Amino acid sequence: MIRHTVSFSLVHPAGSDAEAEFLSTGARTLSAIPGVESFVVSRQVSAKSEHAFQFAMTFADQATYDAYDSHPDHRGFVATRWEAEVASFQELDLVPLTPQ
Amino acid sequence: MIRHTVSFSLVHPAGSDAEAEFLSTGARTLSAIPGVESFVVSRQVSAKSEHAFQFAMTFADQATYDAYDSHPDHRGFVATRWEAEVASFQELDLVPLTPQ
Repeated sequence: MIRHTVSFSLVHPAGSDAEAEFLSTGARTLSAIPGVESFVVSRQVSAKSEHAFQFAMTFADQATYDAYDSHPDHRGFVATRWEAEVASFQELDLVPLTPQ
Repeated sequence: MIRHTVSFSLVHPAGSDAEAEFLSTGARTLSAIPGVESFVVSRQVSAKSEHAFQFAMTFADQATYDAYDSHPDHRGFVATRWEAEVASFQELDLVPLTPQ
C-alpha cells in the first residue's frame, strides 16, 4: 500500500472561483483514474508550510501507481492545468511501517 | 478533524539500530499522548523528497491538538530526541475538504 500525497499552492487568489474550480476539476479528474483509492482534498493550515492544499490518494501497489502516473488523464491534467496553475508543490510517497 | 504530519530524515545511518530505536520510541511516546488518534509511522519512498520517514496523527479539533503540543511528553521528546537526531523535517496540518 502506498499513500501518495502532494501539497501545493496555486497562483490563484485565496477564495477565488479559479481556485475552487482547480480543486474540483483536479479531484474529479484524478480520483476517476483506475486504481486511485481514498482520494482526499485537504486544506493545509500549518503556518510552517507555504502550501495551501493537499491531494492524497492510495494505490494498492507500485504497478497500480505506475499505471496512474502514465494514464492520459493524469498526464493531461498535469500538462494543461498543474504546470500553469500550481506555484509550488512537494510530493511524498508513504508506505506504512505500523499496522493500519 | 486535523491530520498532523511531519516528514523527516534522521542523522542516523539508514537501517541502523539508532534509526529503529528513534522510530519505535517516537511512536510509543507520541501515540500515548491523550487525544492522539490513528498514529502511523511510514517510510517515505519518493525520490522527489529528501525525507525518509513520516509520523502522522489525527486530532479531533484544534484544542486537542494544542493540548498535545504543550504536553510534557511531547515537549520532552522534542527537546531530548528530535532536536538532536532529526536532520531536516516538514510539518503539514491537513483539514479535509471532501467527505471521508
